[in-house]
Amino acid sequence: MNTIEFRSDNAAGVAPQILASIADANVGSAIAYGHDDVTAQLEQRIREVFEHDTARVFPVTSGTAANALALTALCPPWGSVLCHTTAHILNSEGGATSMLGGGAVMKGVPGDDFRMGADALRTALASITWGDPHHSQPSVLSFTQPTDMGTIYPVEAVTELSAIAKASGLKVHLDGARFANALVALGCSPAQLTWKAGVDAVSLGATKNGGLSAEAIVVFDDAAADELVYRTKRSGHVTSKMRFQSTQIQAYLADDLWLRLARNSNDRMVELAAGLQELSVEFVNRPDVNMLFARMPADAIDHLEHAGLLFYRMGPETIRLVTSWQTTPADIETALSHFHAALA
Amino acid sequence: MNTIEFRSDNAAGVAPQILASIADANVGSAIAYGHDDVTAQLEQRIREVFEHDTARVFPVTSGTAANALALTALCPPWGSVLCHTTAHILNSEGGATSMLGGGAVMKGVPGDDFRMGADALRTALASITWGDPHHSQPSVLSFTQPTDMGTIYPVEAVTELSAIAKASGLKVHLDGARFANALVALGCSPAQLTWKAGVDAVSLGATKNGGLSAEAIVVFDDAAADELVYRTKRSGHVTSKMRFQSTQIQAYLADDLWLRLARNSNDRMVELAAGLQELSVEFVNRPDVNMLFARMPADAIDHLEHAGLLFYRMGPETIRLVTSWQTTPADIETALSHFHAALA
Amino acid sequence: MNTIEFRSDNAAGVAPQILASIADANVGSAIAYGHDDVTAQLEQRIREVFEHDTARVFPVTSGTAANALALTALCPPWGSVLCHTTAHILNSEGGATSMLGGGAVMKGVPGDDFRMGADALRTALASITWGDPHHSQPSVLSFTQPTDMGTIYPVEAVTELSAIAKASGLKVHLDGARFANALVALGCSPAQLTWKAGVDAVSLGATKNGGLSAEAIVVFDDAAADELVYRTKRSGHVTSKMRFQSTQIQAYLADDLWLRLARNSNDRMVELAAGLQELSVEFVNRPDVNMLFARMPADAIDHLEHAGLLFYRMGPETIRLVTSWQTTPADIETALSHFHAALA
Amino acid sequence: MNTIEFRSDNAAGVAPQILASIADANVGSAIAYGHDDVTAQLEQRIREVFEHDTARVFPVTSGTAANALALTALCPPWGSVLCHTTAHILNSEGGATSMLGGGAVMKGVPGDDFRMGADALRTALASITWGDPHHSQPSVLSFTQPTDMGTIYPVEAVTELSAIAKASGLKVHLDGARFANALVALGCSPAQLTWKAGVDAVSLGATKNGGLSAEAIVVFDDAAADELVYRTKRSGHVTSKMRFQSTQIQAYLADDLWLRLARNSNDRMVELAAGLQELSVEFVNRPDVNMLFARMPADAIDHLEHAGLLFYRMGPETIRLVTSWQTTPADIETALSHFHAALA
Repeated sequence: MNTIEFRSDNAAGVAPQILASIADANVGSAIAYGHDDVTAQLEQRIREVFEHDTARVFPVTSGTAANALALTALCPPWGSVLCHTTAHILNSEGGATSMLGGGAVMKGVPGDDFRMGADALRTALASITWGDPHHSQPSVLSFTQPTDMGTIYPVEAVTELSAIAKASGLKVHLDGARFANALVALGCSPAQLTWKAGVDAVSLGATKNGGLSAEAIVVFDDAAADELVYRTKRSGHVTSKMRFQSTQIQAYLADDLWLRLARNSNDRMVELAAGLQELSVEFVNRPDVNMLFARMPADAIDHLEHAGLLFYRMGPETIRLVTSWQTTPADIETALSHFHAALA
Repeated sequence: MNTIEFRSDNAAGVAPQILASIADANVGSAIAYGHDDVTAQLEQRIREVFEHDTARVFPVTSGTAANALALTALCPPWGSVLCHTTAHILNSEGGATSMLGGGAVMKGVPGDDFRMGADALRTALASITWGDPHHSQPSVLSFTQPTDMGTIYPVEAVTELSAIAKASGLKVHLDGARFANALVALGCSPAQLTWKAGVDAVSLGATKNGGLSAEAIVVFDDAAADELVYRTKRSGHVTSKMRFQSTQIQAYLADDLWLRLARNSNDRMVELAAGLQELSVEFVNRPDVNMLFARMPADAIDHLEHAGLLFYRMGPETIRLVTSWQTTPADIETALSHFHAALA
Repeated sequence: MNTIEFRSDNAAGVAPQILASIADANVGSAIAYGHDDVTAQLEQRIREVFEHDTARVFPVTSGTAANALALTALCPPWGSVLCHTTAHILNSEGGATSMLGGGAVMKGVPGDDFRMGADALRTALASITWGDPHHSQPSVLSFTQPTDMGTIYPVEAVTELSAIAKASGLKVHLDGARFANALVALGCSPAQLTWKAGVDAVSLGATKNGGLSAEAIVVFDDAAADELVYRTKRSGHVTSKMRFQSTQIQAYLADDLWLRLARNSNDRMVELAAGLQELSVEFVNRPDVNMLFARMPADAIDHLEHAGLLFYRMGPETIRLVTSWQTTPADIETALSHFHAALA
Repeated sequence: MNTIEFRSDNAAGVAPQILASIADANVGSAIAYGHDDVTAQLEQRIREVFEHDTARVFPVTSGTAANALALTALCPPWGSVLCHTTAHILNSEGGATSMLGGGAVMKGVPGDDFRMGADALRTALASITWGDPHHSQPSVLSFTQPTDMGTIYPVEAVTELSAIAKASGLKVHLDGARFANALVALGCSPAQLTWKAGVDAVSLGATKNGGLSAEAIVVFDDAAADELVYRTKRSGHVTSKMRFQSTQIQAYLADDLWLRLARNSNDRMVELAAGLQELSVEFVNRPDVNMLFARMPADAIDHLEHAGLLFYRMGPETIRLVTSWQTTPADIETALSHFHAALA
């Protein structure tokens, strides 16, 4: 049976350009632990891409590492990180930030469309007694962009929320596991979506969008970057042959590869969503990027599974569908025919 | 100028068989986070190679991660890890185990040839008040095999030290960043050097010996393995596209590749050491595997650097030379000619 | 101006019997760190009071210490503690448990009357993927009894919630900073409210009810108690002259002192609440023990403050009133006269 | 049998003046968590005693808490604390600083007379690669003054070692569990022995010298003090009825009580040591304050135990003798008669 992969974009393979870059980097010897030329060039490249002269970059091998390390460099042990109640860092990282951050805590803040609301953020900030050690002190605002539920924050929302946070002295982090998908959907520049909107550190994901094991912490705050030199190493997140990490991200950013791959994911989702809307499928989220949560009868879900669609069941009548850089128009067409049959 | 790389074996590139295995694994999609087939096959393969029916394996991307996670799964927060005073885990991992292990501490135990001595271990165990919470309780014995100074423990020494430790209730860990080099030098089996000698968990390094970013925690203790499911994830050490980690280790173990690569390193060191002995160079260590620490006048060291040899200066008149899977007989010949000139 | 203290029961002084016990214990010398006779006798006494032959006790000097240490002995670092959304351990201990527990996290579970609901607990337990390291694993259910909002769980509710938790393998903790107030209000025995209802460890508070610096962790779970030997020491919570801690709790439990002191607090609150109800004051909570949250116009609150009542403002029109072992009937009478004037 | 207490000064009772101060403070109500008047006055008093206008004070209830909290406020998680190989913080606090400090580590530095040597400190500082995250970065120098072996650092030694440390950017901590004993022995002022000699934070012990549960962290470094507001609370080291902690230290410092109590301890040791020297007993240490480690035949040690002397056996032929504020000249006379008989 031919299967079609909608479980997750991290079930996809590695983009050929990225795989080729690894082979290309495998020439001669290179000093270890990030002191190599490829990593130095990557930092230069990141500065160009983000239009920021002093940005610093720390390649790591998982999104949890990128998030937790970035957050602990921005948040004191007695601080709290404010994020949406559905955020990955709150629900899906096994307490990584609390562990690596000496007991820093996460606070979920509500908001429609799986995005933190400005009023909810103001309320959260107002409910704390500042300077009172009984209360973990809000220290970082973290966006998931796109959210875990496939919606995105417009640049204006990032800017507004960051400004509210910064007025209370917080730092701002952006969990960009699918950053390129957001960039493409918003049509803005990396700088516009990050430091120009108040963001101090970004978890820049590449793995879900064609990388092998490539995530990068991009930091605009020098004090946090200085800490990350130590924090990455002592958590085991400085690979010795770093050039093979750095080259993946170099290839990812070259020739707009990251945008092209993300555009494929997003465009396939547009096609899929359009097809499902014709079938009157109920959507849980607005599929701004490459993720759709949809409701349908359990027997229809069973039918789809038997037909070879791979996806996650989020509840008895809810499924998650994720497109990737590898999803083809033909995949969507075939999938839609299965949906048609299942829902007939 | 042609350079010859003796700084570290982690400055070497990736073995072609391992690189090819990554390309081979890049077919279709695969479920993430280690639930893929390649990773399941790896566990089976590890059980064969280590002749242990219930061994479990956790691929990670750095040696510090492998060591610190293995140790924290074996050591309670109020415990101490006993290791040689020159151990990597004590001196070169930035406090990783203390951080990830909730304040577990390391205790250096002395011994000749950079190896812990049996009497020193007995003394360390006798000097503690067991059950007294003023004192961190010795909980793990950790070998570095080969040591950071290039010497090795014979199987009998591992067995003896493990038995002493186990008689006091300790668990036993082996830091095998260069495990294959020790295997080849000792001519023993993986089982003989590990669980048959009392070892509960191994940091099985592949990166220094031709891997890209491939280390594996091999665990013979089920309780520790159960903890590692959580400990790896929450420290960011479960890569999403795990198949590309697991395949590296599969390729590493296939057709004795790991032994062949290590044999090259060791053999080149034999040639280098023999040549230097002819030149009456003073050795700091006995080069049992692929590392040599040697003393010579500072101006000779300068000469070597100018001639294109790459190595680390460990002191004004001491250098470290490391051969790798990539070092060729011609490299050694050329290097020896430079030594000859430098010391003339 | 004569003030009347309603800010907190920990603003009250030390009961004379407890102070006298300290002087009584100050005879001769005694071995340090809890190996003294007074502490041994305390453990025996706790076993009698709680009708449990193997209960163990760890005197500490703050409620945060009692809670966080008890919880970390029950919860693995990758676990979560389920508690009500208003729980002290979640909101008012500065992340203590996450810090001392290696990154264990707290999850708020809703419920009416500031008490966790059985259905909400079931939902929380059902929403997790057990064994999936992405998700902190629910490991402890913690009650605050009485709650931070002055309500209490009936014995049946403790029993029911504990049974639900234990069916999923959780341990059960009871934050009893005001344990005696709950006992008196419920008219049950210490055993009925704890281990007979499924509780594994209790933070037994005495400070708020007449102690000087006296809290005790009472543990019915041997494995947790064994850990606490180390956890208390390495967090600085084993006082050297422990006899002066233990004697406070001995005196507290002698001749039903704890119940008599708590009965005074509770009875004074009955009088105060009755008086305020006559004045048609709106209550936020049902004052089951010695705490009342009440709403009234801001200018009435100002009036009360000027009249010498000491209390906390929880919002522009909400105040918190807490009676203590020291509050007298005359205090209540005077206070009510001020309320009468303020609300006239 | 009448016993004489030489096990430890923390086996002694509470000085009557300190006990009386607790009763005196037990008047009316007082706001909790250190916001009371007694604690405010204590801070003022500390500033006078230490002749430092901005010193800050944090009363805690154990020496381990004082040390570990002070150190973690001075040392980043990736730092190391340099102390003598016999230091209490290294050997007798169960890894407290590593736990509370997010994995900060301790490094033992040798030196004669149980005191760190200036050359050994220089060597330790020179052996590190600064800025290299493989190596925990030396961040704090910690003195034990007096040492755990009863010797003291002259003011000049403190000054010299602090200057060496500060030249490399380290902060300086002084573990003063027996600070008053050192003051009396040296005849210097508190300021001379601390901030004037380069010390940034002091663990000021009172418990061993007549307190009930009274230790104070005295901080001259504002950034560290700001952190301690949070660090004390979230480790459970802010007692709610703080006035009863603060009043102990107030009484301790009043009318030179601390010096008078310490002088008694030291003077009794002078008498004891003189008597033992007449008996040709071999000393392990020079008893600069109130501790003596002495060697004698095992049967003599047995004899002393049977005669009612209480002390610790440190080895088969070594005992530790500690005098306290409660030791009387008659105790010494009686003890010496037992020694005379035992060694006859």
